[in-house]
Amino acid sequence: MNALKNDLLLKALKGETLSRPPVWMMRQAGRYLPDYIKLREKYDFFTRVETPELACEITLQPVDQVGVDAAIIFSDILVIPQAMGLEVTLEEGKGPLLPRVVKNEADVQALVTDNIEERLHYVMKALAMTKRELNGRVPLIGFAGAPWTLLCYMVEGKGSKTFDKAKQFCFTQPELAHTLLQKITDATIAYLKAQIKAGADLVQVFDSWSGMLSPADFQLFAQPYLTQIADAVNEDAPVILFPKGSWYALADLSHTSAAGLGLDWSVTPELARQLTGNRITLQGNFDPARLLSPIPQIKKDVHEMITRFGSNRYIANLGHGILPNIPVDHARAFVDAVKEYEG
Amino acid sequence: MNALKNDLLLKALKGETLSRPPVWMMRQAGRYLPDYIKLREKYDFFTRVETPELACEITLQPVDQVGVDAAIIFSDILVIPQAMGLEVTLEEGKGPLLPRVVKNEADVQALVTDNIEERLHYVMKALAMTKRELNGRVPLIGFAGAPWTLLCYMVEGKGSKTFDKAKQFCFTQPELAHTLLQKITDATIAYLKAQIKAGADLVQVFDSWSGMLSPADFQLFAQPYLTQIADAVNEDAPVILFPKGSWYALADLSHTSAAGLGLDWSVTPELARQLTGNRITLQGNFDPARLLSPIPQIKKDVHEMITRFGSNRYIANLGHGILPNIPVDHARAFVDAVKEYEG
Repeated sequence: MNALKNDLLLKALKGETLSRPPVWMMRQAGRYLPDYIKLREKYDFFTRVETPELACEITLQPVDQVGVDAAIIFSDILVIPQAMGLEVTLEEGKGPLLPRVVKNEADVQALVTDNIEERLHYVMKALAMTKRELNGRVPLIGFAGAPWTLLCYMVEGKGSKTFDKAKQFCFTQPELAHTLLQKITDATIAYLKAQIKAGADLVQVFDSWSGMLSPADFQLFAQPYLTQIADAVNEDAPVILFPKGSWYALADLSHTSAAGLGLDWSVTPELARQLTGNRITLQGNFDPARLLSPIPQIKKDVHEMITRFGSNRYIANLGHGILPNIPVDHARAFVDAVKEYEG
Repeated sequence: MNALKNDLLLKALKGETLSRPPVWMMRQAGRYLPDYIKLREKYDFFTRVETPELACEITLQPVDQVGVDAAIIFSDILVIPQAMGLEVTLEEGKGPLLPRVVKNEADVQALVTDNIEERLHYVMKALAMTKRELNGRVPLIGFAGAPWTLLCYMVEGKGSKTFDKAKQFCFTQPELAHTLLQKITDATIAYLKAQIKAGADLVQVFDSWSGMLSPADFQLFAQPYLTQIADAVNEDAPVILFPKGSWYALADLSHTSAAGLGLDWSVTPELARQLTGNRITLQGNFDPARLLSPIPQIKKDVHEMITRFGSNRYIANLGHGILPNIPVDHARAFVDAVKEYEG
């Protein structure tokens, strides 16, 4: 394994003093890049995810073309429900569909949690291949969906504005919900550890729907499982938790063994720092739609964001995935602005 | 005009000492009520909105059947874009559609803001008729959409997960965006004042999409217009502002002339009180999906919510509209729990 030539991201997670923060973008390997769209026209979604050569090629595109300080493996959070035994289909532009959802105890009992590494061997192959191709240029990020977010899809069967079926499952069958969340957690810990063994230098856990929960329900159905994952995986590599919309949980999560916390744009840098002290590295939180601004405005806003967060214990990123309609030169302006920052 | 027999809601907005808070539910006149669904099968959406007899009947249903402490006129926030000259259609269960959206200066110039009372005479008729039918039983609430939320629909043309077209409009043509927001504000102030003249005892302004904005963008594109509306309308009747998702703005908004602030369930009662001092009445914030819990759990959770907010300067409500799949007896349990509260 080659030593990393650019290890800014790992240094930021360790709290080392830096002259400028590292930068990457959620969903940087994806739908705003013309070369990705060309591959999308030739191969369907799960072919792209399950073919290591394609996943590797897609993962490298933003490193080569946009100049980010990290690669994040091209994959999907729903590979865990798949590995646990549920069918997942995806209609391009329409989101995922799980034809057979989890409704009762028998459905939960039927889910498997063993041999995750073998079941998702194609992810490990893609990571190993990408690690080799990167040749130490930048760190490689692995990832998984958080247990609450995966429960949402496993119970609801698709995206939702309110995820009220998922909530109903939790509110009316709380014990069964906890059994399900624990099974997802066990599978996820095994999955993230396997990703690190295969080449991931760090991992991020996406709790995309945690903000749907009240603070009290987050403490019941999300936080204990995020904490378990951070505790178990942090032994192997740094863990970033991204509980989208759950600004109310930042203080609590800053006391876990996670190395970083992702932020959406609903929280100011000052409040995020106030809630988390100097205990943890913060990542975010540029409104993805702000990349539709003119380039000089993007650069000005990025510099202001870094000044407000500070260059240390900070990773520049968006507050959610990059939008499909962002011009590539605007994405590049975001990255360049971070690299040009002089604190 | 009859004096109100139940004026708990107005007393709560004035900060008077109460033994239990008033209770109503956003979207209480609507899709979870079997009698509403019967009318929906006979009359399309805008017929229901534009026929005072139907709007009145629908408005009264939850007062008679669920026992809420206030009626809110059955209408839609998109009547203002309609009155300003845009076509609005609605496909049942699919959300609104504006076939001709606002894109440029000519589109903004073409929007009218005069004679709002005449253009929306059917709302005023519905309010007057409902006021008469209520005969002082409970107060009558009028409402409007907030300027930012209406801009979202006027520019985007329909609902959106990200409203990035609306944001792009604001970020690339900020002066034009402010001209549009000011025109919507002018029309909205006239509209709310006319509603009060027609019989509304108080009004609520729904900023359903304000939480899409960063704190800085909220201060640019939402807050000044909410403040203008509160200042202008509060002279005539109490105003409740509901900036959904914008917990970050609670402190600032507590210093406006609004009488109340609506809260979604992402904020704890304690933090909301801390941010707003004792300057303003708070309303909310039960997770609408929590009404899917068993009835004893609903009652327990409601009592806990009231204890945490306190009975004074507080209006029990949901944190967003009631969901279509809530059993009527669960809605009634919510209301009963508030009435049974003993502090």
